[in-house]
Amino acid sequence: MSDLLLKNVRPLAGATTDILIRDGKIAAMGAGLAAEGVAVEEGAGQIVIPAMIEAHTHLDKTTWGMPWYQGRKGGVLQDLIDNERNERNPIGLDVHRQSMRHAVGLIETGTCHIRSHVDIDTDHGLSLLEGKIETRNKLKGLIDIEIVAFPQSGLMVRPGTDRLMEAAMKAGADVVGGLDPSSMDRDPKGQLDFIFALADKYGAQIDIHLHEPGELGAFTMEEILNRTEALSMQGKVGVSHAFCLGSVSESRAAGLVDRLAKLDVAIFSTGHPSATTPSLAQLRAAGVRVGIGCDGIRDTWGPWGDPDMLERARIVGMKNRFRRDDELELLMDIASTGGAASCGRYGHEVKVGALADLTLLTGETLAHAVVLRDPRPLVIKGGKVVARAGKAVVEAP
Amino acid sequence: MSDLLLKNVRPLAGATTDILIRDGKIAAMGAGLAAEGVAVEEGAGQIVIPAMIEAHTHLDKTTWGMPWYQGRKGGVLQDLIDNERNERNPIGLDVHRQSMRHAVGLIETGTCHIRSHVDIDTDHGLSLLEGKIETRNKLKGLIDIEIVAFPQSGLMVRPGTDRLMEAAMKAGADVVGGLDPSSMDRDPKGQLDFIFALADKYGAQIDIHLHEPGELGAFTMEEILNRTEALSMQGKVGVSHAFCLGSVSESRAAGLVDRLAKLDVAIFSTGHPSATTPSLAQLRAAGVRVGIGCDGIRDTWGPWGDPDMLERARIVGMKNRFRRDDELELLMDIASTGGAASCGRYGHEVKVGALADLTLLTGETLAHAVVLRDPRPLVIKGGKVVARAGKAVVEAP
Ligand SMILES: [Zn+2]
Ligand SMILES: [Zn+2]
Repeated sequence: MSDLLLKNVRPLAGATTDILIRDGKIAAMGAGLAAEGVAVEEGAGQIVIPAMIEAHTHLDKTTWGMPWYQGRKGGVLQDLIDNERNERNPIGLDVHRQSMRHAVGLIETGTCHIRSHVDIDTDHGLSLLEGKIETRNKLKGLIDIEIVAFPQSGLMVRPGTDRLMEAAMKAGADVVGGLDPSSMDRDPKGQLDFIFALADKYGAQIDIHLHEPGELGAFTMEEILNRTEALSMQGKVGVSHAFCLGSVSESRAAGLVDRLAKLDVAIFSTGHPSATTPSLAQLRAAGVRVGIGCDGIRDTWGPWGDPDMLERARIVGMKNRFRRDDELELLMDIASTGGAASCGRYGHEVKVGALADLTLLTGETLAHAVVLRDPRPLVIKGGKVVARAGKAVVEAP
Repeated sequence: MSDLLLKNVRPLAGATTDILIRDGKIAAMGAGLAAEGVAVEEGAGQIVIPAMIEAHTHLDKTTWGMPWYQGRKGGVLQDLIDNERNERNPIGLDVHRQSMRHAVGLIETGTCHIRSHVDIDTDHGLSLLEGKIETRNKLKGLIDIEIVAFPQSGLMVRPGTDRLMEAAMKAGADVVGGLDPSSMDRDPKGQLDFIFALADKYGAQIDIHLHEPGELGAFTMEEILNRTEALSMQGKVGVSHAFCLGSVSESRAAGLVDRLAKLDVAIFSTGHPSATTPSLAQLRAAGVRVGIGCDGIRDTWGPWGDPDMLERARIVGMKNRFRRDDELELLMDIASTGGAASCGRYGHEVKVGALADLTLLTGETLAHAVVLRDPRPLVIKGGKVVARAGKAVVEAP
C-alpha cells in the first residue's frame, strides 16, 4: 500500500483533477493538490477509471505463450471437456506458469481483479488449484485473484468430486462453482443441494456455469433462484453465461430477470458471438448486478481471446448491439464498477475513500476509450504503479 | 508492375521457398532462386498468403481519424439511415479524405482489394462516388477498389434515385447495388427488375444488401435467384449479409444454399455478432463463393470496427463457432482466395502465373496466424512493397 499523487486525470472522462493516494486509498481529489515527499505521476489529461474487473475466466486453461496447440476438437460440450482433461499433461500445460502469463497480461491491460474458475476433477485432484494459488500469492499487491472451485467434468457423475470440492475450499478457494446441473449431471437437485450446502458451510459465494439453453436453462435457473430464496443467500449467488435468458421468450426472460433482481443474483456474461446471451441493458435496468469476462483464452477449447478486458468489452458491446455513447458508458461501467459489485466488491469507484485501483485510458470520451486499441498509459493497484505503457512491472515466466 | 525476389517465405505456412516476381506476376517459385538486378526482400521464414480481400465495406462512411462522433442513434434501420444522411455534411465527413484513411489502413494490414459500396441518394447525388473515385485513382497500384453504386436511402421510395444509379454506372461505378427490396422499398419486383436491367445494360455484377429476416428475406432471396436464372446471370450476382439464412429453418436454409450454389450466387458476410448470420462452412461445403468484410467501421451507425481484415476474420470465426485448425484455415481462405472469387476475381493464389499481391503474416501455422495481432511484416501489390511492419508507403491525409 503506497502513497502517490496522480496529477491531471479525468475521472470517467469528466473534468481534470488531481488524485492524492495515501496508504493505497484515495485520500483527496481536486485541482492543484500537493503533497511533500510523495511520488508524482503526470496524467496528462488522460481518462482514469476504476481498474477493470475480469469477472469470468479460467487461469488454469490457457496455452498463451506455448507452441501453437493443434489438437482442438469440434463436437458437443462433453467432447471439449474430455479433450482438455486428457490433453493437459501431454502438452505440458503447467498451471502456475500459464496462469502467471494470463494474469500478467491482465495487469498490463488495466485489470485489478480476476474471478477465475479452476477445474476440480478426480484426474487432477487439487493440483490445478495449487498452481493457481501459487500465482495468486506471487502477484499479491499487483492483482487480486478470486478463485472459484469448479467441477468442470461433472460433480454427481464423477464420484469423489464432492470431497475434492470441499478440500478445495479448505485449501484456499473462495467461491463454490457449479456446472450445468441438469444437462451435465442429469441431477439438478443433487448438484445444487450439494453446492448450496458447501457454500453455506464455508460462508462462500456461489458461481454456476449455466450453458443450458431455452426452457431447460430456465428451469435450472428457477432451481437456483428457489434455493437462493429458501436459504437467504441474497447477494451471494451468481450465474455465469445464462444463455437461456437469450433464448426463451421475452416475457419468460423478463420474469426470470425480475426474480434475479429481487434475490440479488448476479449474472456474468462473456458475450459469446455464437451463443444466445442475456441482454445486459435489460439486466442493468432491472437492477441486476452484471459482470463480464473473457472466459478461456487460447486454450484447448478454442483459439480465440486475449488477456485484455477492453477487447472483450468490445465483443460484448457488439453482441449487445450497443451503438450510442450512453450504451458504451454503461459497457465501461459493467467492465469496472459494475463488474466489481457482481463479484461482491462494492464501492469500486474513483472517489475519496475508495481503494486506489485505477487505470488510465486514452480517448476523448469514455465511449471513445472503449473502441481504442492503445496500450494503457498507466495501471495503479493500491496506489502503486503496476504497469506503464502496456508493460507490467513484473515479468511473466 | 515490378520485379522482386522474395526469399524464404512459407506459402500458406507450407515449406519454405523463394518467390520470383516479374512484371507484377509470380514468375517462379522454388528454393535458392536468384535473379540479377532484381530487388530482394528477405521473408525470414514467415507465412505468405494471397493478400486479403475486404469484400464488403463502405469507404464513404467512416469517421476514422476525425473527432469522436457523439451523435449515434438507436432505433430501426431507417433511423440509422436517416441519421447518417442528415449528419454527413454538418460533421464535415469528407469522403475523399475519409476513404483514403480507411483504404490506407487496409493496405497496412495486408488487403489488396476492396469492394466498397457507395451511397447514391437524391440529397448527395454523385458527390460521394466522386470522392471515392478520387481515392481509387490516387491509390492505383497500391490497392484495388471496386465500387458498388448502392441506393442506401431506397430506390423506389426516392424518385430520381434510379437516374442517379445509372449516372453512377456511367461515372465509374463497377457493380450495381441493391438494398432490402421488400422491407426498404416495399416493392421487391420494382427494385429487382430495375437493378437486374441496369446490370445487364452495363455488363456489371450485382451485390444486394439483404438484412431482411426469416421468411421475408428468404422470399426476397428467391426473387434474386429467380432473376439470376431467368436472365442467365450465373456468376455475376452476390447477396450481402443474407441474415435470413441464419434465421429460417435448417431445411429451408439448405434449399436456398443449394440454389445459391447451382446459380453461382456469392454470399458476403460480415459475421455481425448480434445478427443471425449464414453458416460459412455450410456455404463453402455446398460450393458457394463466400467473401467477408468489415462493413462500416466507426461510422455514424456504430462505433465498432477497424480497417483490418484479420480483426474481422476473428469476429467471423467466433460467430461461426470455428475452433479447429482446419476451420481457421478455411477462414483464412475465405479472407483471401475465396473472398477474391466472391468478387469475381479468380485465381488469387500463391502460384506461378498469379498476380503478385501477397501478404506476409507472423505465426507458426496458418491457424496461429489468424489469432495474432502483430503488424503485418510485409505487403506486396503487383510485386511492389506497399507496406512494411504495419506502415504503408503512402500517407493518408
Ligand atoms: Zn467459463
Ligand atoms: Zn453494408
